Amino acid sequence: MRRSILLTPGPTQVPEEVLVAGALPIMHHRTPQFEAIFEEATKGLQYIYQTQNPVVIFASSGTGAMESSIVNLLSPGDKVIVIVGGKFGERWANLAKAYQLNTIQLDIDWDTVIDPQRIKQLLEEQPDIKAIFTTLSETSTGGVTDIKALGEITKNTPTSLVVDAVSGLGVVELRSDEWGVDVVVSGSQKGLMLPPGLAFASINEKARKMMEESKLPKFYFDWKKALKSLEKNTTPWTPGISLIIQLNEAIKLIKEEGLENVWARHIRLSNAIRKGMEAIGLKIFNKATGSACCAVLCPEGINGDKLVKLCRDKYKVTLTGGQDQIKGKVFRMSTMGNVNDNDVVLGVSVVERALMEMGHQFEKGKAVAAALEALSS
Amino acid sequence: MRRSILLTPGPTQVPEEVLVAGALPIMHHRTPQFEAIFEEATKGLQYIYQTQNPVVIFASSGTGAMESSIVNLLSPGDKVIVIVGGKFGERWANLAKAYQLNTIQLDIDWDTVIDPQRIKQLLEEQPDIKAIFTTLSETSTGGVTDIKALGEITKNTPTSLVVDAVSGLGVVELRSDEWGVDVVVSGSQKGLMLPPGLAFASINEKARKMMEESKLPKFYFDWKKALKSLEKNTTPWTPGISLIIQLNEAIKLIKEEGLENVWARHIRLSNAIRKGMEAIGLKIFNKATGSACCAVLCPEGINGDKLVKLCRDKYKVTLTGGQDQIKGKVFRMSTMGNVNDNDVVLGVSVVERALMEMGHQFEKGKAVAAALEALSS
Repeated sequence: MRRSILLTPGPTQVPEEVLVAGALPIMHHRTPQFEAIFEEATKGLQYIYQTQNPVVIFASSGTGAMESSIVNLLSPGDKVIVIVGGKFGERWANLAKAYQLNTIQLDIDWDTVIDPQRIKQLLEEQPDIKAIFTTLSETSTGGVTDIKALGEITKNTPTSLVVDAVSGLGVVELRSDEWGVDVVVSGSQKGLMLPPGLAFASINEKARKMMEESKLPKFYFDWKKALKSLEKNTTPWTPGISLIIQLNEAIKLIKEEGLENVWARHIRLSNAIRKGMEAIGLKIFNKATGSACCAVLCPEGINGDKLVKLCRDKYKVTLTGGQDQIKGKVFRMSTMGNVNDNDVVLGVSVVERALMEMGHQFEKGKAVAAALEALSS
Repeated sequence: MRRSILLTPGPTQVPEEVLVAGALPIMHHRTPQFEAIFEEATKGLQYIYQTQNPVVIFASSGTGAMESSIVNLLSPGDKVIVIVGGKFGERWANLAKAYQLNTIQLDIDWDTVIDPQRIKQLLEEQPDIKAIFTTLSETSTGGVTDIKALGEITKNTPTSLVVDAVSGLGVVELRSDEWGVDVVVSGSQKGLMLPPGLAFASINEKARKMMEESKLPKFYFDWKKALKSLEKNTTPWTPGISLIIQLNEAIKLIKEEGLENVWARHIRLSNAIRKGMEAIGLKIFNKATGSACCAVLCPEGINGDKLVKLCRDKYKVTLTGGQDQIKGKVFRMSTMGNVNDNDVVLGVSVVERALMEMGHQFEKGKAVAAALEALSS
């Protein structure tokens, strides 16, 4: 059978051009040669972010950039909202707890996303809320939050809107400046199609002012240091040199396709997965499922983790299982990043084979046919 | 002219086998397949570290692992010693300041290293000192600290000895367990011959007990989370997958040569550089210069930064200049990592050419001859 493919919500498949760029001889970072590469990378990120604001780069995974937004915006005891509708919302909550913030935790059912009106009401009642932490694409459930609506609400308030777009950037529509998002954090191994190891944060004027007041301790993830270095096209600490070189290759590919076309491709591919699954009677878990990751509810008698194992080890397609409260109950198929029509057809066909092998009854080939139909229309 | 070479103290040249391993298709990390790779990596690190204690892996540069040892060992107001004899000692001081520790900063001349007796006396006078932060190989000056002697002093005290071996691990002799070092932090882009982006910390029993008491806030660099995940051969956050795959290749190369032979090679190569420079009347800056990096004092009328630029841009050999108080006054030649006899001969020859072009008077070929002589003996 052909090589393994990943339909996973990070790491995503790395394009060959990007892999090869990572195998070039290493270069030293304190050189004008690397500084030019770094400048290209930060400009490219601004395009992907749809922002004119600075985007700082950390050598870390996405969680590091999430932590950076907590420690750089806030002071001990500050009041914040964290929106928790899955594992990554929980991460915001755990971060807020680790830094002993005065946290309003909005727990929502995992099969839905936040109603922006709840935030509007809360901000009107409690205007001393310093920041709202939310998730663009909640990978653990597939739900995509309406960031545009949240931006409308926070735009003309002193409250900062901080969005974890680790698994949404370069996948689902996100217009940081136009929507008034104050901070967007992301990572390299999702829509940017790189190996993991880089994380990013865009910082607008409002966030920058909060940063000046912030009293939480920080060092490695200190935005002031990062912003100061950024002016000289470098980082305070050794940057992820190879990954930054690879980042430029990945951004080149995204530019060639065009960011809006990339967003549209993800909609088309995830729609094909949905149609395929629905054709054999399977339901999608989250009511606000977006185009990054699709959590499919397992039919009666099928364990999602076993299905994932079978698909990966026997049929060479890596999907992911459910976590915590939906562990075993769903399997997740992601079209994130470097995924094309063929990958989706293959993925749907493998799910069919695995379901059949596990004893689920359905009309053979129907999922693949529906996916193909969706892809052609 | 042949391809560029790096005689830099990080990033160091990445061996071809390691580069190629980084260009393999990405794999998902929450799989038994990757967990086996991760287990191999942590075992390999224990060999390089010469320790039986756990070594945790972070996706970050070395500074991240330095910060991890501050935030995981200590509580606000704790009394610590930081030894500052160069840029990386300063980093410990800045970290201690960022976390508002009660810091005894021992400033020493940059052309020397700490006298262990000073530490002995301080610990006797102030047994409430919680930890000592020092640097194995101070890259900015070339000085190598006598960690063995410091370990003798702290071993039977409650004080932890924390060593920044970012630029020393896999280069100069370091026997973590035998010498009683409590925490050793390091990074990927030095002796381990990888691109930057991974950082490590070994944690012994004494450090682990301090960790249990520590009250400084932390999240991304939380050792408890990392140690818990390590038991299941994974990390709390997305690991640097490609770099960890590359790490195993690099460790394979080190094992083939043998760690003690690697240390011996660095001594032999750095000795050749020293002999070469001395043969044309140049002096070595630090009295305790080790085998990782050699800071060479510029002769009268020669600016070190200009020399570095000339070597890099015209002669394709990247050296590094001096920083801060020795900026322009030295150039640094490092034999760190994947460097062989030929690289050293080439490096010395290029320094000769650049010095000559810059107007320094000396007998042509004498440095190269002395280096060759040292390499053959």
